[in-house]
Parts: sequence; C-alpha cells; structure tokens
Amino acid sequence: MSDVKKVVLAYSGGLDTSVIVKWLQETYDCEVVTFTADIGQGEEVEPARAKAQALGVKEIYIEDLREEFVRDYVYPMFRANTVYEGEYLLGTSIARPLIARRLIEIANQTGADAISHGATGKGNDQVRFELGAYALKPGVKVIAPWREWDLNSREKLMAYCEQHQIPVDFSTKKKKSPYSMDANLLHISYEGGNLEDPWAEAEEDMWRWSVSPEAAPEQPTYVELTYEKGDIVAIDGQTMKPHEVLEKLNKLGGDNGIGRLDIVENRYVGMKSRGCYETPGGTIMLRAHRAIESLTLDREEAHLKDELMPKYAEVIYNGYWWSPERRMLQAAIDETQKSVNGVVRMKLYKGSATVVGRKSEQSLFDESIATFEDDAGAYDQKDAEGFIKLNALRLRIAAGKGRKQD
Amino acid sequence: MSDVKKVVLAYSGGLDTSVIVKWLQETYDCEVVTFTADIGQGEEVEPARAKAQALGVKEIYIEDLREEFVRDYVYPMFRANTVYEGEYLLGTSIARPLIARRLIEIANQTGADAISHGATGKGNDQVRFELGAYALKPGVKVIAPWREWDLNSREKLMAYCEQHQIPVDFSTKKKKSPYSMDANLLHISYEGGNLEDPWAEAEEDMWRWSVSPEAAPEQPTYVELTYEKGDIVAIDGQTMKPHEVLEKLNKLGGDNGIGRLDIVENRYVGMKSRGCYETPGGTIMLRAHRAIESLTLDREEAHLKDELMPKYAEVIYNGYWWSPERRMLQAAIDETQKSVNGVVRMKLYKGSATVVGRKSEQSLFDESIATFEDDAGAYDQKDAEGFIKLNALRLRIAAGKGRKQD
Amino acid sequence: MSDVKKVVLAYSGGLDTSVIVKWLQETYDCEVVTFTADIGQGEEVEPARAKAQALGVKEIYIEDLREEFVRDYVYPMFRANTVYEGEYLLGTSIARPLIARRLIEIANQTGADAISHGATGKGNDQVRFELGAYALKPGVKVIAPWREWDLNSREKLMAYCEQHQIPVDFSTKKKKSPYSMDANLLHISYEGGNLEDPWAEAEEDMWRWSVSPEAAPEQPTYVELTYEKGDIVAIDGQTMKPHEVLEKLNKLGGDNGIGRLDIVENRYVGMKSRGCYETPGGTIMLRAHRAIESLTLDREEAHLKDELMPKYAEVIYNGYWWSPERRMLQAAIDETQKSVNGVVRMKLYKGSATVVGRKSEQSLFDESIATFEDDAGAYDQKDAEGFIKLNALRLRIAAGKGRKQD
Amino acid sequence: MSDVKKVVLAYSGGLDTSVIVKWLQETYDCEVVTFTADIGQGEEVEPARAKAQALGVKEIYIEDLREEFVRDYVYPMFRANTVYEGEYLLGTSIARPLIARRLIEIANQTGADAISHGATGKGNDQVRFELGAYALKPGVKVIAPWREWDLNSREKLMAYCEQHQIPVDFSTKKKKSPYSMDANLLHISYEGGNLEDPWAEAEEDMWRWSVSPEAAPEQPTYVELTYEKGDIVAIDGQTMKPHEVLEKLNKLGGDNGIGRLDIVENRYVGMKSRGCYETPGGTIMLRAHRAIESLTLDREEAHLKDELMPKYAEVIYNGYWWSPERRMLQAAIDETQKSVNGVVRMKLYKGSATVVGRKSEQSLFDESIATFEDDAGAYDQKDAEGFIKLNALRLRIAAGKGRKQD
Repeated sequence: MSDVKKVVLAYSGGLDTSVIVKWLQETYDCEVVTFTADIGQGEEVEPARAKAQALGVKEIYIEDLREEFVRDYVYPMFRANTVYEGEYLLGTSIARPLIARRLIEIANQTGADAISHGATGKGNDQVRFELGAYALKPGVKVIAPWREWDLNSREKLMAYCEQHQIPVDFSTKKKKSPYSMDANLLHISYEGGNLEDPWAEAEEDMWRWSVSPEAAPEQPTYVELTYEKGDIVAIDGQTMKPHEVLEKLNKLGGDNGIGRLDIVENRYVGMKSRGCYETPGGTIMLRAHRAIESLTLDREEAHLKDELMPKYAEVIYNGYWWSPERRMLQAAIDETQKSVNGVVRMKLYKGSATVVGRKSEQSLFDESIATFEDDAGAYDQKDAEGFIKLNALRLRIAAGKGRKQD
Repeated sequence: MSDVKKVVLAYSGGLDTSVIVKWLQETYDCEVVTFTADIGQGEEVEPARAKAQALGVKEIYIEDLREEFVRDYVYPMFRANTVYEGEYLLGTSIARPLIARRLIEIANQTGADAISHGATGKGNDQVRFELGAYALKPGVKVIAPWREWDLNSREKLMAYCEQHQIPVDFSTKKKKSPYSMDANLLHISYEGGNLEDPWAEAEEDMWRWSVSPEAAPEQPTYVELTYEKGDIVAIDGQTMKPHEVLEKLNKLGGDNGIGRLDIVENRYVGMKSRGCYETPGGTIMLRAHRAIESLTLDREEAHLKDELMPKYAEVIYNGYWWSPERRMLQAAIDETQKSVNGVVRMKLYKGSATVVGRKSEQSLFDESIATFEDDAGAYDQKDAEGFIKLNALRLRIAAGKGRKQD
Repeated sequence: MSDVKKVVLAYSGGLDTSVIVKWLQETYDCEVVTFTADIGQGEEVEPARAKAQALGVKEIYIEDLREEFVRDYVYPMFRANTVYEGEYLLGTSIARPLIARRLIEIANQTGADAISHGATGKGNDQVRFELGAYALKPGVKVIAPWREWDLNSREKLMAYCEQHQIPVDFSTKKKKSPYSMDANLLHISYEGGNLEDPWAEAEEDMWRWSVSPEAAPEQPTYVELTYEKGDIVAIDGQTMKPHEVLEKLNKLGGDNGIGRLDIVENRYVGMKSRGCYETPGGTIMLRAHRAIESLTLDREEAHLKDELMPKYAEVIYNGYWWSPERRMLQAAIDETQKSVNGVVRMKLYKGSATVVGRKSEQSLFDESIATFEDDAGAYDQKDAEGFIKLNALRLRIAAGKGRKQD
Repeated sequence: MSDVKKVVLAYSGGLDTSVIVKWLQETYDCEVVTFTADIGQGEEVEPARAKAQALGVKEIYIEDLREEFVRDYVYPMFRANTVYEGEYLLGTSIARPLIARRLIEIANQTGADAISHGATGKGNDQVRFELGAYALKPGVKVIAPWREWDLNSREKLMAYCEQHQIPVDFSTKKKKSPYSMDANLLHISYEGGNLEDPWAEAEEDMWRWSVSPEAAPEQPTYVELTYEKGDIVAIDGQTMKPHEVLEKLNKLGGDNGIGRLDIVENRYVGMKSRGCYETPGGTIMLRAHRAIESLTLDREEAHLKDELMPKYAEVIYNGYWWSPERRMLQAAIDETQKSVNGVVRMKLYKGSATVVGRKSEQSLFDESIATFEDDAGAYDQKDAEGFIKLNALRLRIAAGKGRKQD
C-alpha cells in the first residue's frame, strides 16, 4: 500500500469522508487533496475548508459547479426524456460523471496518482465514480475505503474518531437521519431505515424538498417554459442560466408537492433496492420537454428516441457517461433537438405537473390538415385507401394462404 | 358498386352510422347487418335495435363485450406497460381489434362479403378497423363511406336525413358537443373544437369522466391491487373479473381527478393531432403494474421489456394487433409475467396515483443483501472491485491508447 | 391533367422512358425536361441526348454523378455495415435518393412543377423516388406513368411507338433480356423471368458482372484496403477517389467470382419478390469494414451499431434517405467512425472475400493483455471473480428464491 | 479453504485438467468428481476414465451429449440467425450452458458443494461456466484454479506433474499445438500463437476441420435441407437427428473448404482477442435458415428478429443462457418459427455456401402478385399512390414549414 503518494478525495465535509481523510493518511502514508463541490446539494461547502485544514490537508479544492452540472449533464440527459425503469429520473447518477472528471483533473493538476471516494461497496456510486476515473485516466489508482476497511458500523467509526481526535460535531443533521441521503440540484434521495421494507409507506417527515400534496396550495400555479434546441432558456419569459432554471423549478415544484417518487430499482451491482426521491424541477422538465417535442419532432425520430431512451438511461445509471456508447447516443439525440424550440405552459397543482398548452414557430402541427372542419383539399381522404391496402397486403397474403392470424 | 351483397356495419345507433345504413342500402343496393357492442362506452346499446329496425335492418347484432375487451385486449397490453409517445395509454387503439374481429366473425356467420365503419379518412381508426379485417378475412370488401361520399358537412348530413326520413333525434347529447369523442371502458377521448389550437387549454366542462383535481376530495383514497401473472385479479382483497376491475378503478380514479391527459400525438396517417383523454383506471393500472414488476421481474428482462415497449405500442397504435409482430412481442412479454404476482398499495389524491407499497411472495428484493446494516456476509463488497475493474477495462485500454473520452 | 406545365423525367434513353416522354407530352400537354445520370450503370449516357432531342425535348440534363454517388451515399451507408434482411446490400435503394435530389434540383432550376419516373406500381423504386421528391419539394406533382396508363404490356408499348413514330431500335440488348435489370456502381440486379420461381436456380448466363466461381482464377488475389474515418481511401497503397475505389473493387471482385446473391426479399409495398444481385465491390467492402472496425471500435459502440443497423437498412430500403430518422441514425453512426482508420488485407478466391489481416494505429487490440503468455501484470485474473460474482448476483437471488432457471 | 467437501470438475482428460484434479485434492483436501462429455470435439472421451482413476477419482461421469447439445442449444440458437459481432457463430459459447447444467446436476446427485473448471481468468468461458452454475445452484462454490494458483506457465505445470507423478503423456497432439483450441460439434477454435498479431495471416496447417478452398473439389456439391419449425430434420430427403445433421454438414462443409473465419472479437471481460474458427456445418445452416425464413416469415416479424438478434447473440456470448432475458427472447423467436417449414437447396463450392433455391408449402411468396407479367388484378397499382402520399405526409409537412431535409 506504500505506492500511493497523493490521493484526491471527494470530500463532503461530513463525518464519513473526514474519517476517510485520516484513514488514507494513516493507511497509505500519503498526502490527501480534498475536493468539495457545490452541485446544489443545499449545504454550505465553504465550511469544508476548515475541516480539511484541521485534518492536515494542504491542497483543498472547493468549487461551485452548479451551472456546469445543469448545463453539461442534466440538460443533455433531459433532451432524451431519460427515465430509468420507467420511473427514476437519475438524479444521483447524473452528478457522478462531473465529480469523477473533476477528481481526475485535480489529480492531474496536483500530481496525484490516486483518487478516493466515500461510496460503499454495495451501491452504484462506486461504479460511477470509478468507471469515470478509469475512462479519463486509465492508470489511476482508486481507493474505496468502504470496500477495504473494517469500520463497517457507526460504533467503529465513532471509536476511530475518538482515537484520532476527529471532532464528532462533524455529524450533521443530515447524518442523524435514519436514511441514507444524497442531494444535488436535480434531486434528493432517501434509502435505508424503514424503507428497507418495500411494503412500508415512506413517513411524511422524511421528505425534505417538497410539501405534501395535501399541504400544497389550493390554487394551481401556471408556468411557461421557453425552449431552445431542447433546453429551457426562460421561465415565464425571463431568461435564466440552466442552474437558475432548475432552482426555480425546484422551488415551484416543491411548493406544489410535485416530484416525490417511491420505487424499487435494480442496481447495476445486481440487487434490488428501495429508494425515495424528490425531483420537483426534473419532474416538471420531463413532461414539458415531451410536450415541446410533441409539436416539433418528426414522428419517426420521436419514436426512435423512445426506443433508444431505455438504453441511454441504463448507460447513465450504470456509470458509463464517459464512454463511446454514451457519445454515440448523444450524437443521435442532439441531432434531433435543433428545432425543439417553443413554449410549454404547465399547471402545477397538489402533486401534479400537467401540460395545458404548447406552441412553437417550428411546430409541425398543421391545423389546416388535422382539422375536423373543411380542409380545403389539404389532405385527400382517398389516399388512405391505398395506404391501408398496401399496408395490409402482407397480412392478406398470409391469411389467404391459411396462416393463423389470431 | 353492385358486387356487394351484404355488409356488416359497426353501428353505434348515432346519427352518422344511421346515415351510413341508409347510404349503404342505396349506394350498394345491398343488405346491411348492424353490429353494436357494449365495450363500456357508457351508453345504452339496446336502443340501437329499434333504430336499426326502423332503417330496415333485418340482422341486428347487439353484444356485451366488456369482459372480453378487458381480459383479452386491455390486460395483455398493460402487461407491457404500454404507452404511446410517452403519454398516451392507447384507449381507442386497443378497442379496434376486437370490433374488427367481431365484424369479420359476423360477416362469416351471415354470409356477408363486406364490412363498413364510420371512421373518417383522416384518422387512425379506419386503419385499425381495416387492417384487422383484411388480416382476418383477406378477401373482404371494406366500405368506408367517409372516404367515398360527399356528405362531408353537418348540413349535408342533415339534408340527407330529411331526404331519407331518418329521424334526427338520433342526434344525442354527445353529438352536440363541440368535440369528437370516443369512449370505452379504458378511456374517453376528445378531439376537435378549440382543441385544434395546441396552445389553448382544454375547457373544464369538456371532461366527462373525472372531477377536476381541484374538485376532488381533500382526503386521499388508498387502494390495494392484487396481481396474478401480471393481471389485476382483486381490489382491496375482493376478487373481480377484469372488466369489473377496470370499472372500479375508473370510479376510484375519476372521483380523485386522476387520468386526464392533454397531448399532441403523431397519427399513423402522417399528421399530428391534439387530443385530450381521460383514462382514470388505466392510469392507476400503469403505475401499479410497474410497481409489482419492480419487485418481481429480473433486471434484464425488465430492461428488455422497456426497450421493446415503444415498438409494441406503435404496433397497437397503428392497428397491427392482428399481426405476427404483435404475437411475437406478446410471446416475449407474457413469458416474463409468470411470477408477476403480489399486491400494490396506491394512494389516490387530487389527480395523482402514487405507489406507496408493494409486496410479493415472488419478490426478488432481498433485504438481507440490500440492507445498509450488517448483511452477515450475504454480499462481499470486495467483489465490487473486480466487477468495476473488468467493466472499465475497455475504457482504460482506449484511454491508454489516447482515445478521446470526453 | 392540364395543370402540369413542365415535368422533369428520370430518362434512361431506353424504350420505356422514351415512350414516357411522348406520353407525358401528349397526356399532360406539358414540356418535358430529361435527366440522365451516369451512376456507373455501365452504359453510355451521352446517346440519351440525341434520343431526347428526337423526341422534342429542349432541356436535356446529362451528368456524371459517379463520384458523388459513392462519396455521399454508398460510403455513409457502408459505415453502418448495412445489410437488408441479412443479405441484401441495398444496391438499388441507395441510388434512388441521389436521383430524387437531382430531379428536384433540376425542377427548381427549370421552373418545372412536376417530376416523373419509369418505375412500376409494384416496386420499391416508385416509393423511393417519390418520398425523396416530396421531402425535398413538398408541393411537387409526381407523375408515375406505369400507375396511370394502360400500356401494360410489351405489345401495347410497341403499338404506341409505332403510332407515335418512336424509333424501336431504342430497344437495347438489356431490354431483350428476360430479366428486369437495374445497375449502378454498387450493383446490378435481376428480377422476373424464371426467377419468379424461387426454387429455380438462376441460369449462369444471366450474370453479367462476375465470372462464376468455377471460372475464376485458380490463384487467390490479395488486396489491401486503407481506411480513414470508416471510408476506403486507398487500395494497395494507392490513393483513389471513392468511385474509383468501388470501380476497382468491382473489377477485382468480379474477376474472382465474388458478390453474387440470390434472395427472396420483402418489398415495402407488401409483397415478397425474388431477386439476384451482383455486388462484387460492395461484398468486399462489407467484410473489410467490419474487420477494420473490429480493431478500432469499442465493444459497446460496435454492439449498439449492430442493434441499430437493421433499422437503418430498413429506412434506406423503404426510401427514407431524406428523413429525420436517417439523419439521426447517421449522426450516431458517423460519431463512431472517427478512429476507424487502418488497413485490411483481404484474400479473394473463387467467390469468397476473406479477411486475413488488419492493422491500425488506433487499434484497441492490446497484445500485452490478450496474450496467452505472461502479461506482466497487465490484467489481474482475480478481478474476474468479482466480475462474475456481481454479474451473477441477480441470477443467484432469483434461484435462491426458487425462481425457475431453465 | 477447508469448507469444500466434494467438487465436480469439468475434466477433459488432458494435462491441464489432470493437474487440476490433483491440485484440488491437495489444496482443498476434498473429493473430486470428474465429468467428461462428448459434445463432438472429435476426441475419445472414454480414455478419461482410466486417467481419472489413476488420479484417485472415485466418481467418474462420462457422457455422450451430442444429441442434446445440438437439439437443445445449437438448434434454438440458429432459429435466431445468431451471429456475434457480424461474424462469429458462437461455437464455444453455446456449449458452455450445457456443461454448466450437467456439472450442477452431477453436483446435486453426488452431494458435491462445489464445481471447478479449467478455464483461464482472461477468457469468456470462466464467465459462462460460472454464471450458469450460479443460476442453477445459487449456493454453489466455484473453484477456478487458473485464477488461484501460481502454475501460470508450462514449466511450472510440468514441474507440478513431476512432483505429483502425473503422467506427462497426458499431453496430446492438440496440446503441442502452438494454438489454444476448443472444439465441439459446432466448431473448432484457435487462439494464441502467431494469431496474437492481428495482421498475420493464419497459417494453412493450423486449420484442422476443413480443406483450404484451393484444395477443395473442382466440382460443386449440391445439398437439400428440409426444415420443420425452423430446424433441419433431413438432408437430401433423409431424416436425421439434430447431431447427425450437424455431423453431416460439417463433413460436407469441411470437404468444400467452407466455414473458416478469422476475426478480432470483443470479450465480455473487456479485451479484444483474435480468434480463428472453423464452423463448416454452422455456416451452411445460417445461410439456409435465412433462406427458408425468406419464404415463410412475415416481413415485420423477420425485421423484428433482425433487430433482436444482436442482443440475443450478446446474451449467449456473455454466458447468460440460463437467464430470464434469454428465455424471453427465445419465446419471441420460437413464436415465429411455427411456419418455417420447407426445403432449401445449397451449392457448396471452394469455400462458399450459396443458396440456389427454396420452396415451402407455407410460402408467403405469391407469384401471382409479384409477377412482372399480367397479374389479373391481384394487385392494384393505383393503391401505391395513396400509400406513398400518406407515408410522405409527415415529410411534406416538415418541408412545407421550412424544415431542412438534407
């Protein structure tokens, strides 16, 4: 273990990763560089500086990555209407490639030969961090303390803190929760505790980002979202940066009880797990994006996108953002978004985000053809007969030859 | 046009299809057989008998197909979590193959050489009726009056009625609506009127099957759905037939403002159209089915189902229920449903149907592995390292050879 | 029919399209512009000028499109390893979008309001011409004489010629063949005649571009193909333009009995048809391209390409080259070809084109890892255990819960 | 390592697995059960008995599994026209699930708690054996000596033999080859040696099952294959069992130089490897099966099969035969084969297997429609206009609204 000289750690400033700092210093006799990012998790990142310094860290990186996170990761993902297993909006998954990239960039800047993270050996996040790291710096050494050490209970961690004089007031409100949580601008997630029984309903006081639908306002809120090339660029006519859009939609969604999700999902490491998520802004964005696409995308490209989406979601969920297959899918997706411009009007009310209108200068909806009224010859109904006849031909031939059809 | 001797007409008893009866008799000098089915559209079918008799029809078929409709069409479709273009639950599409099959069976019984329907030349329903008919009876003659005649306005239809002494009180409340509507046990649809502007919000008094979320009860309703092989067999522990299940869920959903949908969709005939739908029971079923599958399906079969679903939805939407590709897909889907047994608990509240619990004796969720607590060796976290290393190998080799990764 | 003023006709100079010139002039009382292209069909195009002039045509377009054809259509298609129904290399399909585009461009230049072609109403080519035309000029009028006139036999055509003084020596050797043929730089096709019985073996004297394997040289020919970004840029080290590459490979392949194909295919219009094809160069290109990709593509992008290919082939076969879905697929395909550089060595011998070597500076093949010899620690075999264990986890959980596995 | 009591070993009788017997006995102090199967590898299996006895093995299983292998594994796989990465016929992959199943069945019969195999830690076979084993007996212990021991060179193995008095004449001619080989009824494979340079052509004397095309007979061989439900049941009219069919086709193919393949493939463990294969019978079967399907399958089911095939091939290649996703795909594939009956006529000549005729009582080829001659009204060419018009509608609308089409 003596071959590691310097390691960059994804450092939250919390108890677990503080223990990891010390454990890395001791176990690998190496220098530790900490990296703490604001990706919208809703906690101050600056306090991590003093904590890291107190642990003897000399190189401390603290960064605000919110804009980059939404612009370069969340937005591209939403262009595909991405949903994992029909429900999950990939809030945790999509933050990992950004962290992995910064870890590696900092390793390159500081001359570190290793990276480390605080993800456990049972979850998806270890995979996402490490696949990203290996893809970007193939010779990097990865240290995953939770897979190596024996501090596998809160008691042992506490004992380790005491023994190494790590201040236990590190322990934040979040850590006292019975749930394992993760948050960024796109969502907050909950696992563990009584959620380990999939039949048990999540307790109301678990949720942090949204009011319950019952507690939401009695009056609906309407909002208009302006799209350019598949991305939201303005809310109610006001131009915003990507992360401002998401912050605003999180507020609107959370206030109206929107975006709670309770699912059992299949992890890449092979087990099922039960998780609850709040994704207020993302839930609104998903429906709105489909609505603007419904006006502006050609049918066949829309259908092809739908066929590719589950694969794209799987690629991201499993941690392959930095991969040729993701780039290949992204190229196909982005090709379709050039004309995805316009405005979607949504109604937010007690847990529901409903599309009530959509318009676009690139609209392919043609009232003169679709109308039930006189279309002045725009569409010749007689064409339908030939269309049906030839589409039926293979079925008729088969039936005519006695092939069973039901 | 003299070569048609007898034609079976899908007859609603309404004005349009009554005109068609007369028009067929006159234009083709042929006998007309009427077929009227109760598929849960919410209108009496028996009155169609007297109306048909008044038009001189001798062979009149009136049938209650509700159970068959849900059991053999709706249920198999829901096994695939079928959604067209991310939103539409295919309420109209799934009723057409049943009607087509009965038209053809009645044609065979009565010795008819043709079938006819009241669908227009711009829509999908003509395609669905006719593809089904040709697949089941390849030599059948299809007469689609709306593509043939010149009665293409309400005024001309009325004049035709007067001229041919067709009682105009045929015109029902439904027909006076500004919307073109279609209903069956799965849904009711609205098109036309002010919906032809996709930016215009649907008017509240358009909706017929559900209260608005605002008007729904202040208290949530909880319901438990029992699944066997992917199909709901009981509600709150009470065993029911398929159509009783759907009727009950429609009531529960409608009372709680659930299942309204407002979309722009791509028709098979090549145009976009705007439609609104109420699918109260189906909306509940879709989420519940995903929930029971989340416990009982293997990850890879679940993902494969998700990849195949858009194709399956397209096949049904386009009218190819009676086709080899639908049977092929159904075989794959049904193969996965053998262990999809258990109970899902849903919360219904002001427009939202939310899963709050799920349990199954066939559950693949393994608390002893998934737990954040001590798993007693059920899962060896060290396995994750090799798992990640080999999954990363191709990426590392590429990066090591200088291949661009971002 | 009086509303057509000028029509651009895809004119081969043969009997059929010469009749069409006259028929268009007479039937539509309009001016005819002829367009004749050399796309490598192996016949002189210049004689079409005099023939058109003799028919009174004033605007005559004769063009050599060979380079454009291969560079912009054949090459992009081969990047996807495109094969329709497992066998057909799409030789006819891929030429149609180019013809359609030029027809429309000439229509725009000459102020024509219509285009016309000599394809029959049973085939795919009418679809391909017309979909392309409509996509590029939505208001264009398309005239398909074979669907309109009653000259549906050789006798009637001859009578028409005599009546209208069209010289019958138009009839070329090709036309006397019992087969319907089509040729361009990529292939020559044969349909009809005794091929209409799928059990009957094609007669040896039908084939025109290749010697029989039996008649091919006793010594194999070796050839080296150099790739840049997925396209062949040199043969045996000699740089060539795309169409020169294909001409050279056609020669090499034809001389060695390579590229004959005899299939039953499914037409877009709904029927099966039996066709024979000679695609000497294309057959070599397909195998060689897969070989250079085998070294230079990542596994997952390669597999994703394979999954998308049948759809891409169908899009081209059905005539949707000028469509959003083709562009979307092309974007994904082209994204993968950036590193598809290197050299493939092929052995050509009596009907077989076999890959015997491949090399690339972008190769992802890593001898140090793949070796059966000592790999000096490049690959840790112990990683495989964790890899397998976690990949097996879902299967083990299912089996442990009694789920049937065979 | 003391917790293993009895282990079932996949025993070839060769040097490596003989060393494994001894090593297992020593390292785990456990009883070893040997299992040797004839799956058509072309070597006697009975000699393995004496060798195992000499090593002190008491429970010895020697079985002829050829019929089962072809009937239950090879045939179902060929129904899908399965090819991995466009070239590889999966000869090694498809034998592993059968071996895995027998290992587990024998473990259950003999009360063994572990299985073992001689596959290395770099290859796919370890994965295939072990995924199968875990899927069928989730609690089984798997021992993979090549991942555990340090006998990682021929010298160390020899020293081990000498030390433990294992007769070195175990070493067969096969083992003296510079290549690593594997054989069963479907194929023989070669890896290693000079093949580790992908640019180097395979040496002629490497190939064992086929003559070179150059050395094959000057006269072609014709053969007729009779299909029932997608499987070959007779050759030249003579009914045969599945393995007899494959043996016969291997002979015919090998005599005519058919089935040699030289590729670089992507292993599941993440590296590329170069392999050569001889699959004489399989190569014939693949082309013949496509030919009988070309007559008897509906277009859309054929295309859907083509889209699913790469996934199905990947599932088998990666070792997931015993998985829900394989069963799901198989259900879809088998559903399509009910009418895949008839006869295919092939010409075998100097390396090529060419289809020259196909016939079927379930043929969907309809000469009366496909004909270039008068079809007596079977097909109305005018239907094509409406068919094209409506298929073009979405493209025309887009173009009409200025959407870029090229």
